[in-house]
Amino acid sequence: MDFSDRLIEAIRQKQSRVVVGLDPHIELMPRSILKGVDKKKRSDVARAVERFCLGIIEAIAETAIAVKPQVAFFERLGPAGYEALEAVVAAARGRGLIVISDCKRGDIGSTAAAYAAYHLGLANPTNGELAGLQADAMTVNPYLGEDSLMPFVEFLSKGRGIFILTKTSNPGSGDLQDRLLHDGTRQMALYSAVGELANRLAHRFSIGKFGYSSIGLVVGATHSAQANELRATFPQLIFLIPGVGAQGAMPADVLGCFDKQGLGAVVNASRSIIFAYRDSSAPDRWQESARNAAISLRNELNSAIFGR
Amino acid sequence: MDFSDRLIEAIRQKQSRVVVGLDPHIELMPRSILKGVDKKKRSDVARAVERFCLGIIEAIAETAIAVKPQVAFFERLGPAGYEALEAVVAAARGRGLIVISDCKRGDIGSTAAAYAAYHLGLANPTNGELAGLQADAMTVNPYLGEDSLMPFVEFLSKGRGIFILTKTSNPGSGDLQDRLLHDGTRQMALYSAVGELANRLAHRFSIGKFGYSSIGLVVGATHSAQANELRATFPQLIFLIPGVGAQGAMPADVLGCFDKQGLGAVVNASRSIIFAYRDSSAPDRWQESARNAAISLRNELNSAIFGR
Repeated sequence: MDFSDRLIEAIRQKQSRVVVGLDPHIELMPRSILKGVDKKKRSDVARAVERFCLGIIEAIAETAIAVKPQVAFFERLGPAGYEALEAVVAAARGRGLIVISDCKRGDIGSTAAAYAAYHLGLANPTNGELAGLQADAMTVNPYLGEDSLMPFVEFLSKGRGIFILTKTSNPGSGDLQDRLLHDGTRQMALYSAVGELANRLAHRFSIGKFGYSSIGLVVGATHSAQANELRATFPQLIFLIPGVGAQGAMPADVLGCFDKQGLGAVVNASRSIIFAYRDSSAPDRWQESARNAAISLRNELNSAIFGR
Repeated sequence: MDFSDRLIEAIRQKQSRVVVGLDPHIELMPRSILKGVDKKKRSDVARAVERFCLGIIEAIAETAIAVKPQVAFFERLGPAGYEALEAVVAAARGRGLIVISDCKRGDIGSTAAAYAAYHLGLANPTNGELAGLQADAMTVNPYLGEDSLMPFVEFLSKGRGIFILTKTSNPGSGDLQDRLLHDGTRQMALYSAVGELANRLAHRFSIGKFGYSSIGLVVGATHSAQANELRATFPQLIFLIPGVGAQGAMPADVLGCFDKQGLGAVVNASRSIIFAYRDSSAPDRWQESARNAAISLRNELNSAIFGR
C-alpha cells in the first residue's frame, strides 16, 4: 500500500500529526535506564538505548503516528548500535507505528541502492534478499542530483516513502539552501530547486489516493516563511517538519504547512517529548512525561489547525 | 599529526597517489571468497566481505596510500556489516594505510557530532570515550551548511581529515551542483560555493606544513573542466578524485588537479582494481590482479604527472 496513503490513514485514525524523534542522547537518558551501564562499553550503552526507545514507543504508541529514529545515535555505538536500531524499528512496527529512518543518506548508483535496500528492505525477506531494517520511509540528501535519488524512489512501488532534505531546521541551513539560483529568466532559492526536483519525481512516480506523493520534503519549522512558500508551490508533497520543541519553533509556526483538512505535513519533536521528564517534578516517570508531552503536542497542533 | 601532512608524506614515501576503493559488491566477489557462503545470511556475507577486503588490503598495501571503504556496502549487512567494516579499517591501519570512510554523512548539531565521533573516534580509547571506527578521514555532505560541518571540522585538531562532496562523479551531479548562483555582482556554480565554504573553513582551521588543508574536496574525474576550475580557485585544498576506471575517466583527465610537485590530489579507483580479476585470464588470482591494477594506475598517474 502506498506510503502516503498509509501515513494519511494513520493521521485520520489517530487524529494526530505527531512524529516522535528517537534521539537517544546518552547523557540525557533517565537514571533508571542508565543504572549499571558502563558508559565506556558500546554494547552496554546500546542495550540501554534500546530499553529507553522501547519504553518511549510504549508510551507514545497511541498518540504518535510515527517514530523517527535518528540513525547517528545508533551508528555511534557501532555494530551493537545497529542491533539496537533494528530491535527498536521492529518494536515500533509491532506497535503499529510508521517508522521513518532519519539517516540522511545520499550516494550514487549501486551505493545508493545498498543504502535503500538496507533501510527500506524487508526485515524477514522470503524472496532470497538479505534482511533490511524495514523502515517505512527514510530521509535522503539531494546534493548528488536526481540519479542519486532514483534507487530510493524505486522503493515507492513497495509501499515505502522518502523525505528529501529541502530546507533544514538548523541556523546554517541558509548557507547553501537559501542561495539564489539564476535560471534564465527565473530566480529561485536552491531549496526551491530541490522542491522542483522532488515534485517532478513525485508526479512521475507516485501520487496516492489522497492526492499526496510518497516523496516528501524535510522542511524545518524554524523557517516558516520558506515553509509557507514551499507549501504553496508544491501542494502534493508531504512535509516532514522538524524543529518544533527544543529547537525553538511553536505549533503556530507550522500551520501554513497543512491543508484545509489538516493534511500535508507531519511534525517531529524529539527531545521535548522523549526527555520531557527532565523538566517534570517526577523525573522517574519518564514514560508518563513522554506520553503527556506527545499528547500536548498532538492537541496543540490540532487546536491550531482546526481553530484557524 | 596533521592529516594533510600524513597524506602527503605517504604520497612521497610510496610515490603513489592511488586510493583503493573498497566497494565489496557481493555479486562481483571471487568464487573462492563466496564458497560455502549463504547469500541470504548477512553474517555469512559479512564474513566474506571481510575476507575479501583483507585480501585486497594485503595485495595493495605497498602500492596504494589509502583505502576508501564504501560504508553503504557494509551498512547493507546490518550489525554484522559494521563488524566487518571495523575489522577492515583496523587491518588497513595495521598495514600502514590511511583510511577514508566514504560515508557521505551530513547532519546537524549533536547528530553530526555523533557521526563524527563514530567515524573519526579512536577504536581503543583510553580517555573514557566510546570506541569509534578510527578512520583517518571521512566524506561529508555540505547541503546542510557550515554549522553542520563544524562537528567534523573539530576532529582536524586530532589529526583527522574531511573531504566535502563538491562536484561528484555521477552523471546527475549537475542537477544541483552546476546550478548558477546569483550573488550580487558575481555568478558562480553551486559547486564553487561549496568550494568557497570549504576554503574558508580550511584557512580558519587548518593548513599543514606542506601548504595543504586537512579539509579537502571530492571532485569527480568525470568532470575535468570543473575540476580544473576548482583547482585553480582553491590551490590549498586536496582533491579526492573518484571516477577513474569503471566510471570512465582516464588518468589524463585528472592531470590538472596536481601541482608541479605532483601533490594536491589523490585518485580513487574501486571496481577497476578490486575486481580486476574479472577481466584477467586467471580469475582465481584475484589478489595478484588487484595488485597489478593498482601498480598500473600508480605508474600511469606518475608518468602522466611527471611527463607533463
